[in-house]
Parts: sequence; C-alpha cells; structure tokens
Amino acid sequence: MNAPALPWALHLHSLHAAAWQHLARGVHDRHAPARHPTLATVTPDGRPALRTVVLRSADKASGMLEIHTDLNSAKVAQLRANPAAALHIWDARTHLQMRLRASATLHHGPEVAQTWARVPEAARQSYGIQPAPGQPIPEGLAYHKHPDPAAFAVLRLWLTEMDILHLGPEHRRARFTQATNWAGEWLAP
Amino acid sequence: MNAPALPWALHLHSLHAAAWQHLARGVHDRHAPARHPTLATVTPDGRPALRTVVLRSADKASGMLEIHTDLNSAKVAQLRANPAAALHIWDARTHLQMRLRASATLHHGPEVAQTWARVPEAARQSYGIQPAPGQPIPEGLAYHKHPDPAAFAVLRLWLTEMDILHLGPEHRRARFTQATNWAGEWLAP
Repeated sequence: MNAPALPWALHLHSLHAAAWQHLARGVHDRHAPARHPTLATVTPDGRPALRTVVLRSADKASGMLEIHTDLNSAKVAQLRANPAAALHIWDARTHLQMRLRASATLHHGPEVAQTWARVPEAARQSYGIQPAPGQPIPEGLAYHKHPDPAAFAVLRLWLTEMDILHLGPEHRRARFTQATNWAGEWLAP
Repeated sequence: MNAPALPWALHLHSLHAAAWQHLARGVHDRHAPARHPTLATVTPDGRPALRTVVLRSADKASGMLEIHTDLNSAKVAQLRANPAAALHIWDARTHLQMRLRASATLHHGPEVAQTWARVPEAARQSYGIQPAPGQPIPEGLAYHKHPDPAAFAVLRLWLTEMDILHLGPEHRRARFTQATNWAGEWLAP
C-alpha cells in the first residue's frame, strides 16, 4: 500500500489542507473517493452501524459537512439518540485515509425547503420510500417511491477531529482537532 | 450509481452466496474491494470509530472473518470494552454494498504463534510500533518499528448479521441473520 512520498504529506498544515481539498473534490466530482464516505453511527443498544453516504457540501471555515437522507432512515433515529458520528474516506490513488469525528445536527421541513428545491427530480426518488428504509418486505421490489419533501432531511456533521494517515514510503499520521482551532499533532501510525 | 440487473441479485440465496464470494476474493486478491473493509468500533465514551483493515480470512461455515492488528491499537482497547463491531465494503464494479455486524474475540500470544510464523517479514513491521499507534509524537517520523510477536493480535469477527444492498436498475436490499441460520429477508432499500 506504499506510494511515493508526496510533498503535502510532509507538513501538518499542508496535510490538513490536502484533506480539505479531497473533501471539496468529493462534493463536485462524483468519481472522487470523498464523494462516498462511510458514515458510522451508534445504535441505541451500543453497536456501531455503517453505510455509504453521498457528500453534498464541505465547508472548511465552519468545519461542516452535509449529507442528505430519508427522515425515516435508521441513521436519523440513531443520531437523534446519540449525535456522535464518524466518517471514513480512503483514497487509493494518493494512499490517504481520512477518519473524521463529528457531531450531527438534523434539519428538515421548512428549514430545508430551499435545499429540496435544488434536488434533481431523479434524486428525489430516494426520499419517501414506503415502507421506510430497512423495513422487511415480502419480495425484493415490494416497495414504492413517493418523492416527499416531508421525508427529506439534511444532516450537518460538525467535525471535532480529523485523523489523517498517509501511507507513503514512511507512514505519517496526524490529528487535527476543533478544540485547538485545527492545530495538528503527529501521531505514531 | 445504477448498474445492469445481475442475476445473483434476484434471489436471497444467490445474493448471500455473492456476498461470501466477494469476501473470499478479498482474502486472496489484494485489489478486490473486500480486501480493505472499513471496521467500526465504539469508544468507551459512546462514539463510533472507523479505520481501514486488511481482510485475512473469511469462513462461510462459521460466519467468521479475521483481521490482524497491533495489540496496543485503540481498536483492541475499544473491542475489549465493547466487542460489538461492524464492517463495511462497497464494490463499485458490481454496485454492491455489504454491511456486516459482528462480535469480536481477541487472540494473541501462544494462541496465534502459528499465524505469526506465516506473516511475511515486511508485514511484521506493522506490529510493535513504538510509541503505540495513535500516541502523539514530536515529528512525523519520530517512531520506530520493532516487529514483535507479543504485539501481534488476531481479531476474529463472528458475524451476526449481513445487510446486503445491490444498487441496480431497481435497488434490492436483504438482511441475513445468524439467529435464523442465515435465512434472508428482503428489506425496503
């Protein structure tokens, strides 16, 4: 899993900047690895739960990422009970692993009406599936799509920590925390 | 994210078999998506934690996956406190998402001496890093590799649930549980 040393991996500030460049690319390029992070939540009985999500926005100034989801999905119920979330992105090309900690806030209804208005018709099919996502059904296609703005939710993920690992000729790992205004420190890999 | 309908996605038993074929391929083909699952654990303060791992074995008969790790890593400490784990694999080529729930057991010392004996010299560098993985260090390369069999651990992940989603022309999602001897049921996607 080793790649050539990349100059941006040598310094804390450039490693942090590279991570945000990856995130920004994920929002705009559907083929970028950061387009599809893996989102982790914790279930009410204390188990981790994972799923692929689509990155919709990334704002470095506020340290905030956005994803869209069905209001009736399990992840929404899990985050209502415990807002602690984590995101994982692995970029095989640059050998960069990003592990992000976040606290989630949920937004729906009139607050996200303007966002819904910008969701393309095809993408709206993902919100309002009946029965709700994860409910048992008698056959594989025994569900209906009812695009429904009332089922549309935006999750804002407010980052608290970024753990960035570059697997180069030598591995370099650093942690950046919101508590220190994103000052970084190196970690043993 | 839509792909042509694949015959194995149409029936519960063939979807389950396809998932295990992906896992078996991950063990033997370093370029297969299942080679590098994302492993989730829960921290003692109730937050999810994620990292890429390397799949070392997959046994359908016992429903067990194996990974190797440093005994001093955070994931080991987390799994000692809470053995609930989850794994996530996304295969972009076949548009298959696998979400696995598991309970982990930790094995080290004499119990895994035979496994250590088969770990190639280069791979042994990953076990016994000092300071321990995740500890702050003053510079990016201020750590040492001390291949150490005492730091080598095997995590066995005993699957309890497999949630398999195929994103075809129509999405199909099914859940298979150990409690029902892996009988599956369809879920709304």
